[in-house]
Amino acid sequence: MAQFKGNAVVGQSGGPTAVINESLVGVIQAVKESGHIDQLLGAKHGVRGIINESFIPLKNVPGELLDRIAATPASALGSTRDKPDAAYCEKIFKAFAKNNVRYFFYIGGNDSADTARIVAELAHKESYELCVFHIPKTIDNDLRVHDHTPGYGSAAKFVAAAVMGDNFDNKSLPGIKVDIVMGRHAGFLTAASVLARQHDNDGPHLIYVPESPLSEDKFLADVDRVYSQHGRCLIAASEGISKPNGLTWAESMAQGIEHDSHGNVQLSGSGALGDYLADLIRRKLSPPGGKKLRVRADTFGYLQRSFPGFVSPVDAREARLVGRMAVQYSAEGQTEGSVAMRRLPDAQYKIETFLTPLAGVAKETKHLDASYIADGNNVTDAFVKYAKPLAGELPNVGGFDELD
Amino acid sequence: MAQFKGNAVVGQSGGPTAVINESLVGVIQAVKESGHIDQLLGAKHGVRGIINESFIPLKNVPGELLDRIAATPASALGSTRDKPDAAYCEKIFKAFAKNNVRYFFYIGGNDSADTARIVAELAHKESYELCVFHIPKTIDNDLRVHDHTPGYGSAAKFVAAAVMGDNFDNKSLPGIKVDIVMGRHAGFLTAASVLARQHDNDGPHLIYVPESPLSEDKFLADVDRVYSQHGRCLIAASEGISKPNGLTWAESMAQGIEHDSHGNVQLSGSGALGDYLADLIRRKLSPPGGKKLRVRADTFGYLQRSFPGFVSPVDAREARLVGRMAVQYSAEGQTEGSVAMRRLPDAQYKIETFLTPLAGVAKETKHLDASYIADGNNVTDAFVKYAKPLAGELPNVGGFDELD
Repeated sequence: MAQFKGNAVVGQSGGPTAVINESLVGVIQAVKESGHIDQLLGAKHGVRGIINESFIPLKNVPGELLDRIAATPASALGSTRDKPDAAYCEKIFKAFAKNNVRYFFYIGGNDSADTARIVAELAHKESYELCVFHIPKTIDNDLRVHDHTPGYGSAAKFVAAAVMGDNFDNKSLPGIKVDIVMGRHAGFLTAASVLARQHDNDGPHLIYVPESPLSEDKFLADVDRVYSQHGRCLIAASEGISKPNGLTWAESMAQGIEHDSHGNVQLSGSGALGDYLADLIRRKLSPPGGKKLRVRADTFGYLQRSFPGFVSPVDAREARLVGRMAVQYSAEGQTEGSVAMRRLPDAQYKIETFLTPLAGVAKETKHLDASYIADGNNVTDAFVKYAKPLAGELPNVGGFDELD
Repeated sequence: MAQFKGNAVVGQSGGPTAVINESLVGVIQAVKESGHIDQLLGAKHGVRGIINESFIPLKNVPGELLDRIAATPASALGSTRDKPDAAYCEKIFKAFAKNNVRYFFYIGGNDSADTARIVAELAHKESYELCVFHIPKTIDNDLRVHDHTPGYGSAAKFVAAAVMGDNFDNKSLPGIKVDIVMGRHAGFLTAASVLARQHDNDGPHLIYVPESPLSEDKFLADVDRVYSQHGRCLIAASEGISKPNGLTWAESMAQGIEHDSHGNVQLSGSGALGDYLADLIRRKLSPPGGKKLRVRADTFGYLQRSFPGFVSPVDAREARLVGRMAVQYSAEGQTEGSVAMRRLPDAQYKIETFLTPLAGVAKETKHLDASYIADGNNVTDAFVKYAKPLAGELPNVGGFDELD
């Protein structure tokens, strides 16, 4: 039984994913169907749209447009990186009270879960009746408690396909190639590059994640060994790879690089780390006096989070589901939490959703389990088993070496 | 009536495309069907495989594997950047004579057409009976005589989709974004970013191609104007953009950067140009003493040429067709040429193939017609009409601003 009578606000926050609008459309559909909410207001650019009372009424958006929006990457309502403090939250309440908002659905990552937590706590303190639900999204897949996060599967599919194509590229014109994959602190997305491998000699030959500190010596020895063995080398490295001294490669490489408003170092939207690693290999591993090694680097950049038309169907379905479930939980009388998924112990991949406290998801990031990392330069079969159903089917490719 | 009795060699050369193996499979299928060729030998890594007599017999490759190879990016036979001189060609003839090779099908761009031309001329000179056919491929779309080139449509689709996604990304978290697209000399691929636009305010807001020299002052004034108007700015710039003094931006920016074996400057496989442009905007357009502008750059890199599972169906079909037609022309008694396409003057998009002399295609590149470029920072509707059928259908996306 729904507890509060009034309107709802839905907002989107943080970095884009390819399926974040599936969750939004899930909320809209479920609100239309359940009937316990009066108006459904979409906040433009997250919490910023709330304090500015910049809303889009969402109940009457035509279904044809919703279908297209669901297939569109990046927040259709606009996003924000604002992180509300107490004063900011006062403004949120004023806007909520003025508009009789009793349900707040916030789609985002762990920063957004933290925003939801702060808003919910202030609501308690001020005895304002408010349901607060965090709806997960992040390509980083780094939310605690959640088995995995909508947005990750599609990004994983994109990275796996990109590395798969690059493996054939590298096979046809052999050389050393570095691919930089998103993920500041968690290596889930970089690790997904393993899904590109189909045969013994396929790349990525080396996979580096932030969880496993990497010295320059080990990196160069790894590349040298693979290149000697295969005459080529394909490397997937996370933008957040770190050195044994605790600094990231990006930090030790650059001084005075940009920070975003959350204090994070700018790693994405720049090819600097990839170019640095390529140059390092070229300088240190080219034969003295001989021909320079052919080394190239690509930084996959924003394409990983906002490439349209190439989503994982499982991911799209689950993103829709967590949006719908947030509304359903609110209709059942739940008042707050993060909508999480867990796997059922079936042989086939199957999940169910549950509500988990906001505080347990907020702020902190989840990391790749140690059992997923091998030798500091590879990932394990256990990780493949974990990630494969999330990315879904990959292109069905082949080569003449299958005849051997 | 086929003139010569003997074997055939097929090879692949130059940079990958997503559909280069469609052409290879077209050759294999047509050879199996026509019956005028004895053995069909696939040369591993192009001309290098010929002189090393490193061949794969192709007539008995299972159809199931051929289907998967056709859908696989980058040369399945391996590629090469070798450009044969007279001495190299002597070795080619020795290998051809030894293996009674009378048909040579070479899949590649204008460098490959030139290789085919040299080989054909030496065959004439030495009175060696040899049919030589160039089968076009290049994501650059820069072959003279050819209306367009297999490989371009799929790369154009990838670039258009990537920029389309990035437009929504940029809309949801506004800022200035630079996307660097492949194309040293020809702007066809960068120009294809225009296909991402669906509504008035959609990016790419600025499109820069190598054919239209661009000064730093014009670039900064363009970005400033768009950013003031829209509060955001999405830029698609070719890796080969040049300055009014004739140097490329990459040349004027960097000293001592790598050259490949054809004397080309290394532009791909590095994020340097994008990072340079982003930094230039940040330095010159950020308000003095105020908050630095949010500027990011992505360099699409190898993904443009070897991303699997996202090809243009028209492009895949045509790539298969030109491979098949090379064999058919040889069966009809033609002895040499490049297999080109031209458009029929129907209202609907329709093409036919024809044979054109190798010399007319070799070496030199075709450029974007002046009628396709607008104001030095945009492309025209005439270009959209030209490119749209080649890229094929793009993701069907949408946003709430359609309600306005």
